[in-house]
Amino acid sequence: MEKQTNSKELGFGTQASFGGQRLMNQDGSANVKRIGGPFISASDVFHQLTTMSWGRFLLLVLCGYLIANILFAFGYFWAGIQHLNITPTGSFLYDYLECFFFSTQCFTTIGFGRVNPQGISSNVLASVEGLVGLLSLAMATGLLYGRFSRPRAHLLHSNHILIAPYRDNKNAVMFRIASTRRHSILIDNSISLSFGYNQMDKGVSKRRFFFLNLELDKINFLSSSWTIVHPITEESPLWGMSHDELINSRAEFMVLFKALEETTSQTVLERFSYFVDEIVWGAKFDSIIGTTAEGKPSLNLNLLNSWKAVAIN
Amino acid sequence: MEKQTNSKELGFGTQASFGGQRLMNQDGSANVKRIGGPFISASDVFHQLTTMSWGRFLLLVLCGYLIANILFAFGYFWAGIQHLNITPTGSFLYDYLECFFFSTQCFTTIGFGRVNPQGISSNVLASVEGLVGLLSLAMATGLLYGRFSRPRAHLLHSNHILIAPYRDNKNAVMFRIASTRRHSILIDNSISLSFGYNQMDKGVSKRRFFFLNLELDKINFLSSSWTIVHPITEESPLWGMSHDELINSRAEFMVLFKALEETTSQTVLERFSYFVDEIVWGAKFDSIIGTTAEGKPSLNLNLLNSWKAVAIN
Amino acid sequence: MEKQTNSKELGFGTQASFGGQRLMNQDGSANVKRIGGPFISASDVFHQLTTMSWGRFLLLVLCGYLIANILFAFGYFWAGIQHLNITPTGSFLYDYLECFFFSTQCFTTIGFGRVNPQGISSNVLASVEGLVGLLSLAMATGLLYGRFSRPRAHLLHSNHILIAPYRDNKNAVMFRIASTRRHSILIDNSISLSFGYNQMDKGVSKRRFFFLNLELDKINFLSSSWTIVHPITEESPLWGMSHDELINSRAEFMVLFKALEETTSQTVLERFSYFVDEIVWGAKFDSIIGTTAEGKPSLNLNLLNSWKAVAIN
Amino acid sequence: MEKQTNSKELGFGTQASFGGQRLMNQDGSANVKRIGGPFISASDVFHQLTTMSWGRFLLLVLCGYLIANILFAFGYFWAGIQHLNITPTGSFLYDYLECFFFSTQCFTTIGFGRVNPQGISSNVLASVEGLVGLLSLAMATGLLYGRFSRPRAHLLHSNHILIAPYRDNKNAVMFRIASTRRHSILIDNSISLSFGYNQMDKGVSKRRFFFLNLELDKINFLSSSWTIVHPITEESPLWGMSHDELINSRAEFMVLFKALEETTSQTVLERFSYFVDEIVWGAKFDSIIGTTAEGKPSLNLNLLNSWKAVAIN
Repeated sequence: MEKQTNSKELGFGTQASFGGQRLMNQDGSANVKRIGGPFISASDVFHQLTTMSWGRFLLLVLCGYLIANILFAFGYFWAGIQHLNITPTGSFLYDYLECFFFSTQCFTTIGFGRVNPQGISSNVLASVEGLVGLLSLAMATGLLYGRFSRPRAHLLHSNHILIAPYRDNKNAVMFRIASTRRHSILIDNSISLSFGYNQMDKGVSKRRFFFLNLELDKINFLSSSWTIVHPITEESPLWGMSHDELINSRAEFMVLFKALEETTSQTVLERFSYFVDEIVWGAKFDSIIGTTAEGKPSLNLNLLNSWKAVAIN
Repeated sequence: MEKQTNSKELGFGTQASFGGQRLMNQDGSANVKRIGGPFISASDVFHQLTTMSWGRFLLLVLCGYLIANILFAFGYFWAGIQHLNITPTGSFLYDYLECFFFSTQCFTTIGFGRVNPQGISSNVLASVEGLVGLLSLAMATGLLYGRFSRPRAHLLHSNHILIAPYRDNKNAVMFRIASTRRHSILIDNSISLSFGYNQMDKGVSKRRFFFLNLELDKINFLSSSWTIVHPITEESPLWGMSHDELINSRAEFMVLFKALEETTSQTVLERFSYFVDEIVWGAKFDSIIGTTAEGKPSLNLNLLNSWKAVAIN
Repeated sequence: MEKQTNSKELGFGTQASFGGQRLMNQDGSANVKRIGGPFISASDVFHQLTTMSWGRFLLLVLCGYLIANILFAFGYFWAGIQHLNITPTGSFLYDYLECFFFSTQCFTTIGFGRVNPQGISSNVLASVEGLVGLLSLAMATGLLYGRFSRPRAHLLHSNHILIAPYRDNKNAVMFRIASTRRHSILIDNSISLSFGYNQMDKGVSKRRFFFLNLELDKINFLSSSWTIVHPITEESPLWGMSHDELINSRAEFMVLFKALEETTSQTVLERFSYFVDEIVWGAKFDSIIGTTAEGKPSLNLNLLNSWKAVAIN
Repeated sequence: MEKQTNSKELGFGTQASFGGQRLMNQDGSANVKRIGGPFISASDVFHQLTTMSWGRFLLLVLCGYLIANILFAFGYFWAGIQHLNITPTGSFLYDYLECFFFSTQCFTTIGFGRVNPQGISSNVLASVEGLVGLLSLAMATGLLYGRFSRPRAHLLHSNHILIAPYRDNKNAVMFRIASTRRHSILIDNSISLSFGYNQMDKGVSKRRFFFLNLELDKINFLSSSWTIVHPITEESPLWGMSHDELINSRAEFMVLFKALEETTSQTVLERFSYFVDEIVWGAKFDSIIGTTAEGKPSLNLNLLNSWKAVAIN
């Protein structure tokens, strides 16, 4: 009952079953623990700072700004507040706050001047802080541009992958995606769907990987939605598998989507996977395409995950 | 009378006729209403800010600058103008204006210093405004670079698509494009032309899509103009269609242009479409290539839309 | 004597001979005069500002800085120098210079504060100038990055194209290129060579274009030099042409080079052409590869244009 | 004993043996000395500033900042410290330091204002320094973004290339690579392996280059490690070569790795080479894939270079 068709190498190896764990998390990241290797790199930092949420990013910027000024303020305080050309009040809080606000005026290069450095140590600190401020601005600029210009597919995909009835008394694997872009269309879209499951080989469980043939693996324009269909024919590794066999073999469907975003001419990629829990046996997607009252085509993204149970062949 | 040649999937679906509405607007955007999905994303904002006109963009920048300063000025006014180290005049307008101009000096990080913050609330506001100013500058930098470096084809295309006489007693569909770039040439240019129309199938109107064969679908250099020609042969879905049939079937010609821009090595894309009203039955383009008085080749873009009526075969 | 082999469309049209003028200038720009079309676009400006020489670019930046400050200084002067909080001297030159230097302090957002605006008109001017200064900085940042990161092949090519003896008693067209990159290698290099000349057709001179077959049109790494060779076989449009025929037919060789630059992973392009005057009939390139005293391979770029006359077959 | 299979041109030429020196250094740079050509270009500078280590880069920025301020400070001192609106102390050190710190306040555009220019020469210097400061900031922004966004493979490769036993009583050339990326996966990975060695031809040593067939030259995802295998079959140029022959012929294995980085959709490249000293005759890699205590797949990068000696066929 094994059909090793179009078995291309995926890069996951074939020798280990890894206890039936999924190899790709649903968000597309690899489910592999790395031991050793470089601790952290500038690219890693840049990657994280450009992909984290806006809220977290702005919080980090604010924290960085606060921490830098708190530290420099201690410097100015240590150098002596009288070297900032103001009379010490004797109160730590008041004097420290003067140092802190002076520091923010240095860091942002505002430099009002009521409070201003006189003497070598304060001046050295102010010169360094000005440079640090400028380099921080330079970095913030790069990060903001990196965040804004990052190529993103902006796809939604159905939460489940369905085993649905198909023509010629066959069944098919189906999931669907939709573009949420309002102002541009994705061009030259392609999908590759791969399938991994555990197979007993002489008493040892081995994980095997296959590419699944699709009814259609390329479309020119993605302006609305696209249902991807793998017909379960005799050539499919899924041919003859029951629902229980799918679950027990820890089946995983991995998707790689590629397209060309027209405004920026960037290639956009999206990866995601469906694991045991996300497979629905015997179901059919509801239509999400309709027409508005004025007769204009409409796409209802709220129905993307909408399906009804049906008998399969 | 139907020839389903090279019928590749375009991504528009085939099941609905959408009341004969065009699927792609003439500017290339999709004529689809989206229901649900994410409200707005940072990419959408970036996309709009980098593609809007320069006038609108600069107006937005100016408005943002005004609004930020108006709000911060209220903050300083509320915190007490005496904490900006100036004597209140008692006049709201005068005092508020002092706050407003102080705010602009914070936001731009000029910081003259005649007016300067003293006291916690003013100083906190000034520290925050300095940071907001820097981040705004960072964002403006990214947006300006995004606007300048956006890959653009800079094509002109004829307003109409012509049905013109062609060799061997046939007719052809023709439109033409021209590059308006002054200092660089487009390389590896390619065109794909697709055709959609409503067809009666067992009493139901269905929309069908086809790719049309072109006499030439790739040229190496586009330094002047290019007339794209689809010969209406027996294999064409247009074979035997009359002018009325074209109009009644809500015919639409969709064009996708790709090229490589040589200075930036960016891929440039351009999409546009011709709908019922833009089809001219029986016409021929006038030549737009000539020679200047000094014998240098010339390209007259003013004649791009120039055609004369002729009898077709 | 005409062999219309691999005649692909170049995009120059075939109907006009243009009085034997070259179609591509030696620097790769098109020799076409454009009439009509948009006057100028932001992309054109960006293109020019990123491709002009560094000297010219810095001069332009300096001029822009001077002009902006000269104009704003007139504004401050007109608004009244007493509104900059300094006592007028009565001397136009002295007072105007104070305005001018104040303006530079606004534009650069330094804002020392000895001279500072008081009153509405001066303050409005200063607020606007601060914004203009920031936007200019944003633009300068984009332009500098655009200049630095522009993908460039950094090729040298021989000034002449040679007609040289070749094996099997044939001749060949030869030119050579070399990379001047010190720290990176070009990958996946490819060359396409096309040939245009005027041909008499029923008494009318028509310009014809051909792609020329190359002995080798792709190499994996370009770390030193590469001699490109078109063997003049029976299939070549140059077969049987004499030196005089080449000159009289206004022959032009057009070259398009593509490669992948490894540090930035950018595609780099280079175009250039050889016209009548740059063809040498009967010559052979001198070798530019040698070994240093320590036995290390060496590449002598000073010899790139070095050739000696030889008899051809 | 020579099998000139799939001998594609690498771009290194074939005529010179270069005294058996390697053509590609282990870090992938070309081992060629260049004579003549342009002295240095802006791209070269940008390339070096974006690829040097962070420590060196920040040191350079600091040095540039110091040098600029040291020079401008001399300018202000020469113009007369009284024109900075402060009373000269007569001590060179004190007065020069005032000038120096004033200069840093100009360069960073802080501009406190206690010290401020009055008189033409000081004002001209301050205006120029403000502009220089802004342009330096613009440049630093571009450089930082260039450093952060540079496409990098982040690969580790084994230090040695092994001649290992292979199935069917044959041997194979093997080396292995691993991705050190934590948050993204490389897509569409491909490897090309080429082989160069000196061969005696009529008493003259000539260097020959070959592409080696790989058991697998493409994998879809690189989330862990990949062992690249060239089976030494009858078609291989290595067929029948002994260890001594490999060494005496100055054998060199050159690797080019290409992939698509998913977050930025950038193509990443990596080149490296193995020379005589890095070839191990008769060895086998230890496995670096295991499972953690929780049953999760793990990749131990510390074992990447781990191999044990074995007998070969």
